[in-house]
Amino acid sequence: MSVTAAAGFQAAGTAAGLKTEGKDLALVVNTGPTRHAAAVFTTNKVAAAPVLWSRQAISDARADAVVINSGGANACTGTEGFQDAHATAEHAAQTLGISAVDVLLASTGLIGERLNMQAVLSGTTTCAEELNDDDAAGAAAAEAILTTDTVTKTAVAHGSGFTIGGMAKGAGMLAPGMATMLSVLTTDAVIDPQDLDAALREATRVSFNRADSDGCMSTNDTVFALASGAHPEADPAGVDLTEFQTALTELCQDLARQLIADAEGAHHQIAIRTVNAATEEEAETAGRAVARSNLFKTAIFGQDPNWGRILSAVGTTDVQFDPMTIDVAVNGIWVCRAGGIGEDRSLVDLSGREVEVVIDLKSGQAEATILTNDLTHDYVHENSAYSS
Amino acid sequence: MSVTAAAGFQAAGTAAGLKTEGKDLALVVNTGPTRHAAAVFTTNKVAAAPVLWSRQAISDARADAVVINSGGANACTGTEGFQDAHATAEHAAQTLGISAVDVLLASTGLIGERLNMQAVLSGTTTCAEELNDDDAAGAAAAEAILTTDTVTKTAVAHGSGFTIGGMAKGAGMLAPGMATMLSVLTTDAVIDPQDLDAALREATRVSFNRADSDGCMSTNDTVFALASGAHPEADPAGVDLTEFQTALTELCQDLARQLIADAEGAHHQIAIRTVNAATEEEAETAGRAVARSNLFKTAIFGQDPNWGRILSAVGTTDVQFDPMTIDVAVNGIWVCRAGGIGEDRSLVDLSGREVEVVIDLKSGQAEATILTNDLTHDYVHENSAYSS
Repeated sequence: MSVTAAAGFQAAGTAAGLKTEGKDLALVVNTGPTRHAAAVFTTNKVAAAPVLWSRQAISDARADAVVINSGGANACTGTEGFQDAHATAEHAAQTLGISAVDVLLASTGLIGERLNMQAVLSGTTTCAEELNDDDAAGAAAAEAILTTDTVTKTAVAHGSGFTIGGMAKGAGMLAPGMATMLSVLTTDAVIDPQDLDAALREATRVSFNRADSDGCMSTNDTVFALASGAHPEADPAGVDLTEFQTALTELCQDLARQLIADAEGAHHQIAIRTVNAATEEEAETAGRAVARSNLFKTAIFGQDPNWGRILSAVGTTDVQFDPMTIDVAVNGIWVCRAGGIGEDRSLVDLSGREVEVVIDLKSGQAEATILTNDLTHDYVHENSAYSS
Repeated sequence: MSVTAAAGFQAAGTAAGLKTEGKDLALVVNTGPTRHAAAVFTTNKVAAAPVLWSRQAISDARADAVVINSGGANACTGTEGFQDAHATAEHAAQTLGISAVDVLLASTGLIGERLNMQAVLSGTTTCAEELNDDDAAGAAAAEAILTTDTVTKTAVAHGSGFTIGGMAKGAGMLAPGMATMLSVLTTDAVIDPQDLDAALREATRVSFNRADSDGCMSTNDTVFALASGAHPEADPAGVDLTEFQTALTELCQDLARQLIADAEGAHHQIAIRTVNAATEEEAETAGRAVARSNLFKTAIFGQDPNWGRILSAVGTTDVQFDPMTIDVAVNGIWVCRAGGIGEDRSLVDLSGREVEVVIDLKSGQAEATILTNDLTHDYVHENSAYSS
C-alpha cells in the first residue's frame, strides 16, 4: 500500500546502483488536483544538502514530486554536495515536466561522501518511466528508501473523504527531533496547506519525535506530507480536521513503532511511559533520559530489571519529582516503591521482546511515552562495522 | 602512596565481606592539626544515602575521617538506607573517639539494595585498628574502594610547603558532573576551608567533570578534599594558592585520565579537544556531545575515523559554529575541512589505544578537552551482566 494508497499519487522504486544491491532510489509524484506540501526537518545544524534544498523548495508549501535515495546521505559534502542536490532536482523536473523548486529531496546512507550522481540521475529517469499508482509501485518506493532496515515500514488510514498512506525508513539513530528517519506521507484529503502543516507538526511531535533509539540526531531526518485533494468522496469544503489529525497521528505512531521494532541490533523494544508528571513536557524529558541511558539499555539487554538505573537517569533531569515517593514498574511489577525496594525483582519477566516501563512521578497528571530499544552486541557490531 | 603521602593522614583498607572477594572498606583519618574539608557531590536528584549524610556533615567545612565502602552503593534504599549511613558514621565516631558529624561517607556498588551492615561495621572496626600513615596503608585504602576497576588510581603532587595525595575509583558511568566516581584528596597544606573549597571546585570542573565515559551520572559521585596543615615546612601564613591550584588541578586531571583509561570494556581512550570555540563552556559542550554519541563511540571501536558522526553530534548542540567552515582532525589527519571531505581518511591510524580528536569551531579562542572512550562489546557485556 504505502504512498500510493491515497488517490492522486504515483510512485516508483528502482535499483540505481547507489547500494551494492537492491533498490535505492524512489520517486513519489502528486498528480493533483492540489499539490500542497508540508515538512518537518532535522534540527541538527549540520543539515544534509537535500535538507537545505528541500527547506527552500517547500517554502511555498507546494511540491509536485519527491526524490529519495538510499546508499548515500549527501551530508557533510560542502558546496559540491549542494550542487549535487540541485542537479538532482533539476533532472527530476526536466524528466517530469515540472519546476525544480517543486521537487523535494531526501537522502540516507553514509555521511561525508559524495553521491554517485550518475546513478542518481539515471535512477530518477528510470523511476519516472515506471511511475504507477498501484500497490506494487508504493511497495517498491518503500523498499528503495531502506538502509540497514530489515523490513519496509508502511501504513494506511482511512477516514471520511480521505485516505492517508505512508512509508518510512530508519533502523538506528532514531532520536530527538526524529531519527535518521525519512518518511513520506500522502493524502487525498482536501486540506489547506497551513492545516496540513499544523497537523504534520502535531503528529510528528507525539510519534517520530518520541522514538529515541540511540539519542543521536541525524543530519538528514525528514518527514514530508503531500496532499492531492483527489479522494473521490472528498468534501470540497475541506476535511474534518479533528478526524484527520487523529488519523494522521495514529498512522505516524504506527510507523514510529515499526521503526523502533526494527532498530539496529535491538533485542527488546521498550516503551517508557511516564505518568503523573507535572507537564507533558516533563513526562517526555524523564522518559527520554531513561531511553538514553546506556546503563539502562544494557541492563534490559541482560534481562535485568535494574530499576536503580531508571531512577538514576530520571535524577539527572530537572523534572519535578520526589526521590522518596517515586514508583517504577517493569512489565507490570512495581520493583520500586517510594524510591526504594518494592516488589521482588525476580518476578519481572524480560524474556519477551516487548518491555514496558512505567515511571510514576506523582507530581501531576500529565503523561508521555517514549519508545526505545536495548543496547546490544549487535548494535555495537552494526555501528562499528558500518562503513568499513 | 595515595592518601597517606601528605603528612597528617592515616589510612587502612580491609576485606569486610561486602564483595565476594577482595578489600571493600576503606578508612582515611585526618590527624590534624587542621581538619578542614571540602566536597563536590553528584548533582543527580536521586542522591545516595552517604551523599545525603555527607552533605550535612561537611556543612561546617570540618571532617576528621572518611569511611568508604565498595560492594554496595546504598542508593535508592529509602529511609532505611539513610539510617544505615547514620549508623556507619556513629560507629566510626565511637571507634575513633570523634563526633559522628565529622565522619564523611561514600559508597559504591549496586544500587537498589541495602548494605550488609554487619560487614560495614566490623570492617570499620578493623580499619580503625589497622590505621597507618605508610604507603601500604594508602595503597590498601585505594584498593578497597574499587568496583569493576582493574587497577587502583592514585597520584601524588609536591609543592612549596605542601604535598597532595589522592586516590580515586570509577571504571564506568563516568559522567557529567562526574562519574560513579569516588575520590579522596589529602593535603598537608595550610589552607583556609573556603580556599580549599574553591580550589577543589575549580580542579574538579576541568578534570573529573570532563571525563565522560558513558554519559550516565551516578547517584554516588563524590570528591572529598581534606587538609591537615601538617607539612613540616608549611608556611603558617598559608600555602601559595596559585601554586596549590595548579598542583591540585593537574593531580585531578591525572586521576581523571586514569579513570578513563580503565573504563569498563574500553579499547580506546579518546581525548576530544575542541579549539577556537566562542567560550570555554561551548568548547566543553561540543566535546561532550561527541563523547556521548554512541555512533561515534562504536565507530572508534571499529577503527573507523567517521568524522561525519562527529559533525552530526556537534550539530545537535547550540554551540556557535558554521557547518561550512568547521575542521576536524583524528589522530593528526584533518579528515574534515570546511565541513566537507578533507585529507584521505585511510591515513588515520586508529590501531593504538589513544585517540585524539580535534574539532576546530573557528568561532573564537577558547578550548576544552573532554575525555571519553569507545563503546565496545565488552562494555555491553559488563553492563548487561553486572547484577545478574
